[in-house]
Amino acid sequence: MDKYIYLDNNATTQMAPEVKEIMKENEDLYANASSMHTLGRMAESAIEWAREEVRALINADDKREIIFNSGSTESNNTVFNIFREIADEKGKKDRLILSAVEHPASIECAKYLKKKGYKVDFIPVDKIGMIDLDAYEKMMGDDVALVSVMCANNESGVIMPVKEVSKIARKYGALVHTDATQAIGKIPVDVKDMDVDYLSLSGHKFYGPKGVGALYIRVGVPRFTYLHGGHQEGGERAGTYNTQGIIGLGKAAELARVNQKKERDYLWSLREALKKGIEEKIEGVTFNGSDDYETALPGTLDVSFASAEGESILLYLDLEGIEVSTGSACASGSLEPSYVLLATGLDIELAHGSIRFSFGRYNTMEEVEIVLEKLPPIIKRIREMSTRKV
Amino acid sequence: MDKYIYLDNNATTQMAPEVKEIMKENEDLYANASSMHTLGRMAESAIEWAREEVRALINADDKREIIFNSGSTESNNTVFNIFREIADEKGKKDRLILSAVEHPASIECAKYLKKKGYKVDFIPVDKIGMIDLDAYEKMMGDDVALVSVMCANNESGVIMPVKEVSKIARKYGALVHTDATQAIGKIPVDVKDMDVDYLSLSGHKFYGPKGVGALYIRVGVPRFTYLHGGHQEGGERAGTYNTQGIIGLGKAAELARVNQKKERDYLWSLREALKKGIEEKIEGVTFNGSDDYETALPGTLDVSFASAEGESILLYLDLEGIEVSTGSACASGSLEPSYVLLATGLDIELAHGSIRFSFGRYNTMEEVEIVLEKLPPIIKRIREMSTRKV
Repeated sequence: MDKYIYLDNNATTQMAPEVKEIMKENEDLYANASSMHTLGRMAESAIEWAREEVRALINADDKREIIFNSGSTESNNTVFNIFREIADEKGKKDRLILSAVEHPASIECAKYLKKKGYKVDFIPVDKIGMIDLDAYEKMMGDDVALVSVMCANNESGVIMPVKEVSKIARKYGALVHTDATQAIGKIPVDVKDMDVDYLSLSGHKFYGPKGVGALYIRVGVPRFTYLHGGHQEGGERAGTYNTQGIIGLGKAAELARVNQKKERDYLWSLREALKKGIEEKIEGVTFNGSDDYETALPGTLDVSFASAEGESILLYLDLEGIEVSTGSACASGSLEPSYVLLATGLDIELAHGSIRFSFGRYNTMEEVEIVLEKLPPIIKRIREMSTRKV
Repeated sequence: MDKYIYLDNNATTQMAPEVKEIMKENEDLYANASSMHTLGRMAESAIEWAREEVRALINADDKREIIFNSGSTESNNTVFNIFREIADEKGKKDRLILSAVEHPASIECAKYLKKKGYKVDFIPVDKIGMIDLDAYEKMMGDDVALVSVMCANNESGVIMPVKEVSKIARKYGALVHTDATQAIGKIPVDVKDMDVDYLSLSGHKFYGPKGVGALYIRVGVPRFTYLHGGHQEGGERAGTYNTQGIIGLGKAAELARVNQKKERDYLWSLREALKKGIEEKIEGVTFNGSDDYETALPGTLDVSFASAEGESILLYLDLEGIEVSTGSACASGSLEPSYVLLATGLDIELAHGSIRFSFGRYNTMEEVEIVLEKLPPIIKRIREMSTRKV
């Protein structure tokens, strides 16, 4: 697949060679990790190695706070179900607050709960897609059981002030969840620094395998099983251990922990070069999200091109072997413009014309140069076509 | 791991070489299958190939009836949640019936629902572990929303009369779910012949990868999402596609469909040889489950040895490199004797002394001979030790 320039790393990443290698090396660990025999215990011990790597990655206190599962969608559903169970107890806490730009895995859960009669409120965002902390504080009350704000947004790339969110939540005795799926490996993610109770992550967003992830649950906070069954994960998440996947996740966690700092700067340099080039070569361009190193994911550049449909741009770039997204892959299949961009107050036409470039570890400056050569004539052609139509 | 004789194939299987190969070959299909670009569409098309293979394996009408997920635990939880949603509608249907020997992934769901106030009844089994059809029919009524009976039991190996279960369920307008996790690849599994509405399966039980499986939902029956989020699987099961895993599952499905008939006889020959040898060489032995080709899983032999603890036998066999289970791996971690065997009325001491040998595609007659050489002195030694203690 060398002929492709893959700039859709926020959608998913390829597995690191080191991840592939360790999975291959441990191919013989096929026994059920819950089995008592030697082969079972060997699988279990590899899983415990991986658990320690994930613990270290997010600076959790105890590796028993890490629960392996199928990924962030399952993690988010599990956390929102914990809210549901708390609300069902009919105590004082029965309200859920989340940002309006959470991933669909949270938004759809929240909408489902709202339909079921639970109290759910959404925190608005400003014009770069950052949550409005004042509005959030005004929404808070003693009835709030859980607040959920992502570490960084998958489309705009905006890094949210989760630490501030927690500070305010604590005043009202609310629990805090953060979906760190897009942040892991790109910026520091520290459960103690952010002071969160729950955190979601997926292996495939940071060069690990697909179909495997983890949920962090701080010791001492409410926990309810979402997938009932066998004794795995202390009865909190049933299902035969995906040993190979978990080993791959552990290796990806180790690589992310070791490389995060230098990769952040490398990804930022690619993003900055692309941004500068687009500004120089193309007119009528709006950059969505934040432009500040501290509050922007290093490898994400979301751009709206006036008078050009995002889907057309995507398809023309694809013809040149350049792979990008319009909005998020998870929201594709719908013709709606991005709800994330609309929440920022972006004009509906510009939201329709947005393209997300997302860089990863294996992208190069040469690839940026090719994009800067291919993109301007594509935008020009699409704009000419749309003018002709009018 | 050649020095091990792996007889724990009901707990999980190793991946077939053909499965490993196809996953390796398609390693470059890393893009998000929901992405619109070429790499995304290539991943999507591989997933659709796998979906067709799973459809063919269970003889479903339409491949859109196959929903990929993380495996049978998730499938069973999803189906029991469908029951919950139906019961919540507060119509006439609000009772769940399942066999007393279902897998923990069903039993624990049912117990959870019962605790939440839902109506749940368990079908008793006879002394070989077969459900009591008369008792079941007497339990039925127009208020039953869902009946869940597994194709074959993971511990006893008993094959359940799902077709008869469905016939009775239909008289009362009840939906039918079968957990086919242990049956796939070993006996014919045909959703149309059994007349079921929902079916669960896991790749890792038939030489596919771990962490991936499928849920069959017949067109036209109630369906409710359990993992909310992105648009994957028509919005019915969110989460980035585990493309590699799904491809592996597809290949495993193809192999199972093509080889099932001849493998059934091969596994039966191994089981029969082991059974005959144990009968000849060891006294005080009880074979649990069915002994009839038509109602016994071909590769499962569950044996109780009087005056010998199952765990001791397991550990002594393990020292010889022979890997077996006591009860199910999913129930391990508890010191309780098998609830499956207790449900058959088996004496509690014999239930404690049970060992499950489960054969797979890669076992050989030579391995059976080694077991028959190593097992008798182990049983003798354990019995001597337990006599001394008394």
